Amino acid sequence: MSIQYILEILGTVVFAMSGALAVSEKDSEQDWFGAGFTGFVTAIGGGSLRDIMLGSYPLVWVQDITLLYTIIATIVCTGLLYKWLIRLRRTFLLFDTLGISLFTIVGTEKALSLGVSPEIAAIMGMFSAVMGGVIRDILTNEVPVLFRKEVYASACLLGATFYLGMVQLQVERNTNFIVSVLFIILIRLVALKYNLSLPKFNRLRH
Amino acid sequence: MSIQYILEILGTVVFAMSGALAVSEKDSEQDWFGAGFTGFVTAIGGGSLRDIMLGSYPLVWVQDITLLYTIIATIVCTGLLYKWLIRLRRTFLLFDTLGISLFTIVGTEKALSLGVSPEIAAIMGMFSAVMGGVIRDILTNEVPVLFRKEVYASACLLGATFYLGMVQLQVERNTNFIVSVLFIILIRLVALKYNLSLPKFNRLRH
Amino acid sequence: MSIQYILEILGTVVFAMSGALAVSEKDSEQDWFGAGFTGFVTAIGGGSLRDIMLGSYPLVWVQDITLLYTIIATIVCTGLLYKWLIRLRRTFLLFDTLGISLFTIVGTEKALSLGVSPEIAAIMGMFSAVMGGVIRDILTNEVPVLFRKEVYASACLLGATFYLGMVQLQVERNTNFIVSVLFIILIRLVALKYNLSLPKFNRLRH
Repeated sequence: MSIQYILEILGTVVFAMSGALAVSEKDSEQDWFGAGFTGFVTAIGGGSLRDIMLGSYPLVWVQDITLLYTIIATIVCTGLLYKWLIRLRRTFLLFDTLGISLFTIVGTEKALSLGVSPEIAAIMGMFSAVMGGVIRDILTNEVPVLFRKEVYASACLLGATFYLGMVQLQVERNTNFIVSVLFIILIRLVALKYNLSLPKFNRLRH
Repeated sequence: MSIQYILEILGTVVFAMSGALAVSEKDSEQDWFGAGFTGFVTAIGGGSLRDIMLGSYPLVWVQDITLLYTIIATIVCTGLLYKWLIRLRRTFLLFDTLGISLFTIVGTEKALSLGVSPEIAAIMGMFSAVMGGVIRDILTNEVPVLFRKEVYASACLLGATFYLGMVQLQVERNTNFIVSVLFIILIRLVALKYNLSLPKFNRLRH
Repeated sequence: MSIQYILEILGTVVFAMSGALAVSEKDSEQDWFGAGFTGFVTAIGGGSLRDIMLGSYPLVWVQDITLLYTIIATIVCTGLLYKWLIRLRRTFLLFDTLGISLFTIVGTEKALSLGVSPEIAAIMGMFSAVMGGVIRDILTNEVPVLFRKEVYASACLLGATFYLGMVQLQVERNTNFIVSVLFIILIRLVALKYNLSLPKFNRLRH
């Protein structure tokens, strides 16, 4: 079992947890099934959309049943530890940041390995990271995560571009993987700490 | 023409009707096209998502034009009989229950026949049954059907699991099909009658 | 570079613009990334859904990187010319009409060339034209464009049917393409001018 696989599992855990918490916070009457369904879709959504767009079959979770059991175990633990988890909001934000960072680079690598151009690979990496959350937000009728103020999907796209630049410079793959993941985490943390945001699109109203 | 095919057509009719009624109830100004579009997407959505996730082409409705004409005929009849149909809410709920029960087992069988593991087949069966309705609810800005209180998607997942257990026990296929469909219908009816619901995910607030 | 390719690029420009404007109008705090993301998804959504449903890989924008750069350039120009563009609402409506007309016929042709029946090709043509906008509306929590009063998706479906009828009559392809696009534009303009709408589905409430 490679380090990368362990990190992917970790990313899956984080996303499943975020889905289950999102729906149960929104609607305190939410039952276990609704929480589990939302957690599942959040965890597999981004990667599935990437693979469907690339025509790469079978989907990762269809092939590797470990992911399904990881998600189920995560949902159960999230439900049992609910009271404790919602007090960990700050820590959770760090986990989510870790999740999108890992999925961005994993997704970018997979797209590259299927032979698409670097620009498309970067977009696919970003999709892997954020689309699970977008689907979660559509299901729960929230404003999609990528329209919120903070630097989020843009950090993923920047990180994917950074990774691709390092590939061009023939940086060793494992080093590149780790440095790029840390790069995305750094952008996110700096943006959150200093409350940074991107320039407004519609400037004339300001 | 097999019994199963007739049942699939019946399921398609039920879903097309539920889509057309949902959008026209929500917005009484809804025109024929909007009702037809929603009915169409509701009827084909679950099966299409299953086949896309399994990489199984062509999609059922792309290959078998009968389904399209069935849907069109259903929409026309639904519009003409609107006044009469909305008084049949209770009966309609039975039809919807029949629809999801049939689609669950048909979807589980199809996924199994494509060689996925039983766990994945059960999820695909549930997706076939409920995702058309989820897409309908997203289009019409409703809370997705699977977050409503009643036992709905969970009945499908349970029924699919039941079916797969019977496959393991080498129960004859047609018997298994019928018994499993009846099993889902039974769960739904019992849940509706006694107003059952699953345990809440977020227990501490109660 | 064929005339048709130029028209497709033009359609892509129109849809990218409509996505970026939609999200920034809805939320005046929207940043460049959110506007760009929405513009991108609006421009590629319809064609991607068509190709995924037909199992036709690679997706057009994955294969032809020109489309991505066209979209990026469009977003940048839209942001810079925002003040000027929102005063052009009327003109913009014409552009959108041009966009859906082109995408309908291009999508219908592509589906036909993949061997589906004419009925399915017409639906795929309509999906190509309107689904990008539907995804845009779901992301921004608007009522999907096809449920609004005006004749919109129905004009596309009618135009696709017209095109297919002319194919049956063996009309020369380029002539057919141009005439069919003009036919859709005409329906839309007449519907807008005379404020036409389709019959209501739920007639008993009127």
